[in-house]
Formats: sequence, C-alpha cells, structure tokens
Amino acid sequence: MLIDKVVEETMKKKNPCIVGLDPEWDKIPDCYKSEDIPKAQVVLNWAMDVIDAVKDIIIAVKPQMAFYEVYGAEGFRVVQDVVKYAHSKGLIVVDDSKRNDIGNTARAYAFAHLAEEGPIKADFLTVSPFLGTDSIQPFMDVAIADDKGVFVLVKTSNPGSVEISEAINVNGEKISSWLAEYINGMSESYIGKSGYSAIGAVIGATFPEEAGKLRRKMKRNYFLVPGFGAQGGSARDIVSCFNEDGLGALISSSRGILYQYVGVKEYDGSREMYGKIVREQAVKMKEEVYQALKEHCSEMKY
Amino acid sequence: MLIDKVVEETMKKKNPCIVGLDPEWDKIPDCYKSEDIPKAQVVLNWAMDVIDAVKDIIIAVKPQMAFYEVYGAEGFRVVQDVVKYAHSKGLIVVDDSKRNDIGNTARAYAFAHLAEEGPIKADFLTVSPFLGTDSIQPFMDVAIADDKGVFVLVKTSNPGSVEISEAINVNGEKISSWLAEYINGMSESYIGKSGYSAIGAVIGATFPEEAGKLRRKMKRNYFLVPGFGAQGGSARDIVSCFNEDGLGALISSSRGILYQYVGVKEYDGSREMYGKIVREQAVKMKEEVYQALKEHCSEMKY
Repeated sequence: MLIDKVVEETMKKKNPCIVGLDPEWDKIPDCYKSEDIPKAQVVLNWAMDVIDAVKDIIIAVKPQMAFYEVYGAEGFRVVQDVVKYAHSKGLIVVDDSKRNDIGNTARAYAFAHLAEEGPIKADFLTVSPFLGTDSIQPFMDVAIADDKGVFVLVKTSNPGSVEISEAINVNGEKISSWLAEYINGMSESYIGKSGYSAIGAVIGATFPEEAGKLRRKMKRNYFLVPGFGAQGGSARDIVSCFNEDGLGALISSSRGILYQYVGVKEYDGSREMYGKIVREQAVKMKEEVYQALKEHCSEMKY
Repeated sequence: MLIDKVVEETMKKKNPCIVGLDPEWDKIPDCYKSEDIPKAQVVLNWAMDVIDAVKDIIIAVKPQMAFYEVYGAEGFRVVQDVVKYAHSKGLIVVDDSKRNDIGNTARAYAFAHLAEEGPIKADFLTVSPFLGTDSIQPFMDVAIADDKGVFVLVKTSNPGSVEISEAINVNGEKISSWLAEYINGMSESYIGKSGYSAIGAVIGATFPEEAGKLRRKMKRNYFLVPGFGAQGGSARDIVSCFNEDGLGALISSSRGILYQYVGVKEYDGSREMYGKIVREQAVKMKEEVYQALKEHCSEMKY
C-alpha cells in the first residue's frame, strides 16, 4: 500500500522530509531562463534539476499547483511531466492543490489529480474542508479506490489559520479537533501493514502544541507539515507532529531549499552549483530534523 | 467597473440568472461524441453550443474547473477557449475553481484565473476561505487591481456546509456572519457607480433564511447563488438573496439547464434540438426567478 511505501522509504532514507516544487518565476535562477525557451519548459528543466539534486536523500516532492497554473495549459502539462519524472526516480508525489467541492465535482477533481486513469496521477492530494464532510468524502473515496492518499487541511501554518480552525462547532468541538476525529474515523478501513493510513491531515509547523494534541487524536494518520524553514517552523517545532516511532509525518520545505542560493556568495550562476546548493540545504534540513527526532522519539525506528 | 456591467446586463436582459458549464462526460449528448474527436474538443464544441443557445437571455456563464481538469492540459486549454468564446459573445465569466492558499501562492492562483495578463482571464473567481482572512486578501488584491471580482464561499448549498459555516469563532461570531462582515469591510474601496461591489460571497440557494440574514450584512456585495433547480433551491428560496431593487445576486443553475434533455421524449438526438432544450430550460428559469422577484422586491429596478 502507498502508505507502507512512505514508511519504508522514510526508514530507508532516514528522512521524513520532502521538498516543495514551487516555481516562483522571479526566484528561479537566471541560468534556466532564455528568450528562446518557453517559460513552462524553463519550469520543467528547473524542476527536473531539483529532483535530480535531492532524489536519493528525500522521499517525496510536493508541486504547488498554483505556480504551474500561471502558465495555463502548458503549465498543467508541466505538472503532468514533473509527476512522471519524479515517479521515474522513485519519489512519491504530493499534489498540493487544496481542491474542494461536493459530489460529482469533487470526484472530478480527485480523478484529475489522483486517479491512475487521470492526467496527473499524483500519490497524495491536499483537500480543503470548508464545505464540510460531504465535500471531503468523495476525495477519500477516489483516493482509496486507487490506493492513493489525501491530506485534509486541519490547521495550516499561517497566522490566519486559527480564525476558522479554532472555531467551535454545534457539538462544542473545536473545528480542528472535529476534523481530526473525522479523518481518524474515515481511515479505519484503509490502514497499511505499517499501521498507518494515507488518509491524512495538513498540520502547520508553526503551532507545535496544537500539533501534539492533534497527533494524539490521529495516531494512525499521516501528517503533511508545511511551514518548516522560511515560514518560521524549526526542527524543535515539528517533533510533536510525529509518533514515538519517528513516523507519521512528512515535513515539507520549499523556499528554504529552493531559493537559498541567492544568499550564497560563492554561487557562480551555473545549474550545477544551483543543484549543489539545493542538495546542501536538503541535507541540512534532513540532519536537523533527524537530530530533533532522535532526541524526542522514545521508540525511534530508524 | 465590472460590477456595473453585471448590474446593467441584469437590468437589460431582465435576468439575474447564469448558466453553469459543467461538462460531465457521461451526460453530454452523444451527438457531440465521436472516436475521431478528442474529448477536450468535444467539451469545447458542447460548451460553445450551450453559450450560443443562451447568450441573448443570460448574463454570465460559470465553468466548473473540475470538469475540465479531468482532461489535463487539454482541458485547461478548453477553459481558456471557453472564456474567450463567452467574452466574444458579451457574456461575463465566473470561474468556479474554489481556489485557496496563502501569500504568493494565492496571488499565483489569482493571476492564473483572473489577471488580464494571465492565461484564463475570467471575470470572477470563487475562493474558499478555510485558511483564514490572510488567504482571502491576496485574491481580492489581484482582483481589484484588474477590475475583476471574487466570490468567497460563505455558505454553500450542500447539507454539510453548516458544519463549518455555523461554528462560532473566538469572538462569539458565527463563521458565516464573520465572513460576511469581513467581505463587506474589504469591499469598501471597490464600489461601482451602481452601489455594488464585485467582492462578493457564495450563498447556497438551499438556506433561504440564513441567506436573508447574510444579505442584510452585505448590502453592497454581490452573491453567487448555486443550488437552484437540481440541488433543491426554488425561485421562492432565492428571493432572500436579493435586495429590494432586484439586484445583488447571480442565480446559477447547471444540471437543471444542461441535462434536462434526457427527460424530453421528443429529443431527436441532434445538436440543434439539444440547444433548443437548453434554451427552453434557461427561459423557464428566467421566468420563474423574475416572477418571484417581481412579487418579492418592493423597489424592483427592471
């Protein structure tokens, strides 16, 4: 099952970190850009270089759909190509599209992003829950049918995330807790031999105390944890997203890996050196997170 | 300003109704389909026929992005073409993508869907608010800069929408009311000569009492009202979404217009007759809604 692959790869690479693929045009190194090359092709070349730079140390990449949609149909094709390329290198793909809708519309989104017969074929899709549980269920149904996964937004890393996630519903439950219980319940029929489920939750790295509480409510669910690095989350902040076995979460960094080259004095403007800097940042993140987990997890499995 | 065009067109056509363009493959008439024609092209041909059938009686179309994404890059191109075609016929386009994210990512989505230099160039975009106000603001900023609009989900038409929209935030406000006040406040600097703003809200047709309350909190904001017809909302249900001038809301129907042909005994399987049936349904909806507004609105302007 997909989630068992996530667990196995994490243990094999001793790394629960993943790299976001957010091609913000102005931040992509100039060496990729040329007037002869369409922007979408530049983005694909850049994404393949990033993947090559980190493929042996990280377990997954997370393309951020918004930064591909800006190129229209060509950008959409790049996402399809990025997923294919990442898969060819043995990486798992988390499609960060935060899709949301109801009924047939939700199923259409899930098909487009996750289904093996669909165009993108990602492994995981992020899903936004504002419309309620009848908007989440169709995504889970499609995901489970093709052994894929979803990460439902529960508490994101931005300051404003508290405005809705900490509201209290008609049963007196905090929205984030209620979503956690729903996600936990929905995953019962979809647990791998690792004991984990690919029906998971997005939990920002910037609210460690809340993350710990949610961890205890969703022991078998995987967390996708954005906000590490550039958004303010430290290695110490993310340990509460894990279980004692050092599993249960994927820590994602984008800008902290992709765009640190601008601060490197020795950067010579080449693709080679860009890849080297990306790799160094990914190694640094891996080491920081691994060290923090070693100190925090009493039954660390890797 | 965009919103003044919405008001003028509504008054000119005496119709606040819009038609959803939801190309659910199995429901598209067989006459459009052939093994020689790529699915995305079938969808485009179908969408252009629907637009031609109703362009003189309705004011806007609402493509539902999910049903185009299932065809990948080709589907994305069809959306771009549908928007262009609708604009060439003088129609306003509501891009129902329910996008959501923060910071640069949110701005990238807004650029992709709304900006005049972006690929889609829609007039309005639906936005999902789960991540909080710092996730809504960037969409509004991009929209206002190019005289475009957004409809923020406040209360959708599905039963599960109450789960989050009726929760109570830290200040004791219902999420839907708090969003209404936020939207109302954000639109202050963006009011057209009609007195309305293109910073609006999605309010489902299936909760008429709640819609009336929200109307009073957002007097100047336009509502996008899905759920008419197939989802259970009647003409009597949607009058509370309007102000006394008969303005302030766009009523959207998709399946109730697009796929009623299956129940028509006389349907001969042709594109011509399909267009005729679509038009008849749109006229029927227009008449029902207009009649209900005439009875309900004390200062009806058209």
